[in-house]
Amino acid sequence: MDKEELIGLFSEAFPFWGKMNDIDKETFIRSSYHKSFRKGTNIHDGNECTGVILVKSGSLRLYLLSDEGKEITLYRIFPGDMCMLSASCVLSTVTFDVFVDSEENSECVVVSGCAFEDLSRRMPEAKIFALEAALSRFSDVMWVMQQILFMNMDKRLAIFLLEETAQNGTDTISLTQEQIAKYMGSAREVVSRMLKYFSKEGLVEVSRKGIKVIDRKRLSVLSH
Amino acid sequence: MDKEELIGLFSEAFPFWGKMNDIDKETFIRSSYHKSFRKGTNIHDGNECTGVILVKSGSLRLYLLSDEGKEITLYRIFPGDMCMLSASCVLSTVTFDVFVDSEENSECVVVSGCAFEDLSRRMPEAKIFALEAALSRFSDVMWVMQQILFMNMDKRLAIFLLEETAQNGTDTISLTQEQIAKYMGSAREVVSRMLKYFSKEGLVEVSRKGIKVIDRKRLSVLSH
Repeated sequence: MDKEELIGLFSEAFPFWGKMNDIDKETFIRSSYHKSFRKGTNIHDGNECTGVILVKSGSLRLYLLSDEGKEITLYRIFPGDMCMLSASCVLSTVTFDVFVDSEENSECVVVSGCAFEDLSRRMPEAKIFALEAALSRFSDVMWVMQQILFMNMDKRLAIFLLEETAQNGTDTISLTQEQIAKYMGSAREVVSRMLKYFSKEGLVEVSRKGIKVIDRKRLSVLSH
Repeated sequence: MDKEELIGLFSEAFPFWGKMNDIDKETFIRSSYHKSFRKGTNIHDGNECTGVILVKSGSLRLYLLSDEGKEITLYRIFPGDMCMLSASCVLSTVTFDVFVDSEENSECVVVSGCAFEDLSRRMPEAKIFALEAALSRFSDVMWVMQQILFMNMDKRLAIFLLEETAQNGTDTISLTQEQIAKYMGSAREVVSRMLKYFSKEGLVEVSRKGIKVIDRKRLSVLSH
């Protein structure tokens, strides 16, 4: 990835780019690198400061992981967006560990956490940008939390099926029931039972190929 | 509450107070008011911008509320600390609704959200302070979320009992099982069953007066 392309990316991603002086811009560019991640790669595992990850193509999944290996998906990051929580040295008030995986083959640019932190100490605009980026995800996470804690499983599964098919532009979801359960922070048995119920009701069709949404309208009613 | 006292409070609570000019300070003081809340009063209900609430005495409880009336306690705010999430006009990226109750009789000072927002647009230090205050709670909330989603109920109840007794400086908790369940985001049946188990194990004694912690040591082992 050449310098011009990097500058183009940064000027779009960082609203404070235009106000940076030439030395800071040069440091930023030198502290950044392009990286390709294969589908399923773990990119960040909670401990270290991986840096600010800008997604060019593909998608990343941010999740919590329990000691027993249980996962809760918090949100996904798509092209044009960035992951700020992986830059723990910039966000000293964030003390919880998140994990980031590439969910598809993904092309990313990683800006060093140190370079960002150094800039944000001297440039309030950069600091405010980082804090607001992290805080805006707080709302996403609260939504997930409310969905898990307050909502009924049928409603949750209906939303999940509708969102997955909308995102992929197909009617068929090729995830296993195990994977769906993992993504929803639930147990395979629960998902399996609910899918059987949905299938009996004519909402979906479960086969070896995956789960096909049959009655989008009624699924949508269930999701409200 | 006189002006001198208010100035003393603000200069301790807001690290940027010393850098504010006299007009801004005067506006801040005029836009603030002292308020006493009786135990159990709802102070903030998610929709409007109540303002920044500084706690002088007592304690506030911040929680989520579902459509069905189920509650999840996110964290508590004690004297010397403040509630920033109730100032929704300052934090435009925070889009979820939280509820705030006074858990004891509480003396508070409320700073108008508009005044704070106006200042934070002109003074990056104030903006950064507000964002960091809100973001630091993100970590608290993630802790609660992990506790609820990943931990076993016995562990959670043990932690709850230990924390409640430590906080009140007594061995007896006078909450009902219904209230405990509500605070833990669980069902009364689950709490009741677990308390029966704890009681059989000689960890607690359940009577009409409340729940008495008998074996703090073993309860503490359970909480790890």
